[in-house]
Amino acid sequence: MSQVHNFSAGPCILPQEVLEKASEAVTNFNDLDLSLLEISHRSVDFVAVMDKAISLVKELLEVPDGYSVIFLQGGASTQFTMVPYNLLSDNGVGVYVNTGTWASKAIKEAGILGKVEVLASSEDKNFTYIPKGYSIPADADYLHITSNNTIFGTQLKEFPECPVNLVCDMSSDIFSRKINVSDFDLIYAGAQKNMGPAGATMVIVKDEILGKVERAIPSMLDYRIHIKKESMYNTPPVFAVYVSMLTLEWLKSQGGVEAIQKVNEAKATLIYEEIDRNPLFKGIVAEEDRSTMNATFILEDESLESDFNQVLADARINGLKGHRSVGGYRASMYNALPIESVQALVDVMNAFAQQHS
Amino acid sequence: MSQVHNFSAGPCILPQEVLEKASEAVTNFNDLDLSLLEISHRSVDFVAVMDKAISLVKELLEVPDGYSVIFLQGGASTQFTMVPYNLLSDNGVGVYVNTGTWASKAIKEAGILGKVEVLASSEDKNFTYIPKGYSIPADADYLHITSNNTIFGTQLKEFPECPVNLVCDMSSDIFSRKINVSDFDLIYAGAQKNMGPAGATMVIVKDEILGKVERAIPSMLDYRIHIKKESMYNTPPVFAVYVSMLTLEWLKSQGGVEAIQKVNEAKATLIYEEIDRNPLFKGIVAEEDRSTMNATFILEDESLESDFNQVLADARINGLKGHRSVGGYRASMYNALPIESVQALVDVMNAFAQQHS
Repeated sequence: MSQVHNFSAGPCILPQEVLEKASEAVTNFNDLDLSLLEISHRSVDFVAVMDKAISLVKELLEVPDGYSVIFLQGGASTQFTMVPYNLLSDNGVGVYVNTGTWASKAIKEAGILGKVEVLASSEDKNFTYIPKGYSIPADADYLHITSNNTIFGTQLKEFPECPVNLVCDMSSDIFSRKINVSDFDLIYAGAQKNMGPAGATMVIVKDEILGKVERAIPSMLDYRIHIKKESMYNTPPVFAVYVSMLTLEWLKSQGGVEAIQKVNEAKATLIYEEIDRNPLFKGIVAEEDRSTMNATFILEDESLESDFNQVLADARINGLKGHRSVGGYRASMYNALPIESVQALVDVMNAFAQQHS
Repeated sequence: MSQVHNFSAGPCILPQEVLEKASEAVTNFNDLDLSLLEISHRSVDFVAVMDKAISLVKELLEVPDGYSVIFLQGGASTQFTMVPYNLLSDNGVGVYVNTGTWASKAIKEAGILGKVEVLASSEDKNFTYIPKGYSIPADADYLHITSNNTIFGTQLKEFPECPVNLVCDMSSDIFSRKINVSDFDLIYAGAQKNMGPAGATMVIVKDEILGKVERAIPSMLDYRIHIKKESMYNTPPVFAVYVSMLTLEWLKSQGGVEAIQKVNEAKATLIYEEIDRNPLFKGIVAEEDRSTMNATFILEDESLESDFNQVLADARINGLKGHRSVGGYRASMYNALPIESVQALVDVMNAFAQQHS
């Protein structure tokens, strides 16, 4: 049977060799005759996994001294609360750029804990572009941005020069392109795109920004506690951390972030050129803000949708349905998606256009 | 090679057939030619898993109407915060019974959010017994208890008659014995003992106790939001929920909670009879409070420890080391541990005594 082309938006495709190793570890981990799932998280074998996962993050992103890397639970949604809990002072303000559904949720959650200001928003055009040219108040506690908007298919190509702590939700494009960690003060990402399966969240934080707020912080929401306990304050999500470690090992074997960035750019060029060339399809976001991770597009003639869905199914192209708040189609092209899958999609789009010309 | 006898305290032994199915799902789930890890959590296939996991909890514990069952992340440690966030009013008090390390942490976290009172504690004797005979103030917002104390090896045999909301941390003995859910208002449990792997937390809550506090609650900490969104407010810990579902299916196939309770009682009788009979060993907690899940004991003569550790290793008996705060040994005998493993341990203890008599 031919391969499934998996364009799921997340949880999403993972490298086949990662899945095979993960599958084996579920029945026999490290030749212990025990499953990874049934050993203590404080065993030598699992502590080595956690250490390796953290050191791979540091190596692949060239994390400078003075930053800590931790693995947590609760997804980016929990980070929406942890960020203000740890960084928003009683009389301070957290400033946000609203670029989509997730940014909106981050703003809402911060507002529960303190004062929030939205500096710029693209909500006026259903988040189809990235706002630019806003000025950042120098007395804000932090600026929060979202590097890639999975649902709408927009991506920040340049990060703002920021006079205050810069916090970035990189859930859907971390490890997809080179970044300078030193440009940021806190980066967080749910694992379930380029890093691993659902159930783990990775945070990179500059140590010196912590401990400056007055409020008492519940232990599970306190970055300092997780840093001090090396992501073992409580039982970590063992399997999700292990699969993340395997995925980062795979990324390293592919040549690291710079190498995968070239592949990601080639995949994006391939799909966007087809969208622009093909008379039946149309991209839905501003060209300069197009995401390399999630390409969103629609059929100009909606009545063709059920036909197109059928040819996608025939070609075993999976996960292309757009998010319900946008409609149309979304091709998510995370690190593990081979360019051959993008080519398969382009071929189908092309053939579909010829059939309907 | 002979079987490993896995007495780990958690993460801990899971049924072999569960591990085999879980392993297969990591490479090919439901014959989709896709991994469970790389499909959308909103796909028909995964939604069916979540629904099944929840319905199995309801069936196995005979959860009455008016209660909701949800799967979350963050372990019991996050529940230590969620309970007061949702139940402790501005002028109210949460009352606690302190029976060990985890109860102590629950007390500390509640104190961050409001007023807390410790009704009774066994800290005076290093938590080697369960306090009894305390009276519960009728104006408290809730009473919080811990049904089984994994580290010390004590267990509540009877639950208090409670005039206020009764909250119980059942992380280490849920599904091990019959309970009447209607005696409780909120039950929570990290999955990684009798229910599944690390990374998921299950909560059973009486709907009518929610929404009574004044404070604004971050969405990820608000039970009502997770109930309304059927445990899909954000991306759930897909794999941990799936393995929990498989483990609950296995429990059902074994005859359910009443049947496993009989096995658990037989296993506990076997080990405690040996501890009491064997001149080299001594139990460390009050007899009437001995846990059926975690049997703690020490060698009367500590100088024999390295010899005993060697015979344990030779017999492939794993995870018997006591928690660092207690020392000695701890035999954790969760649902999936076969009685043959307990017999193997008893045989080793017996042979060791004969050798040293």
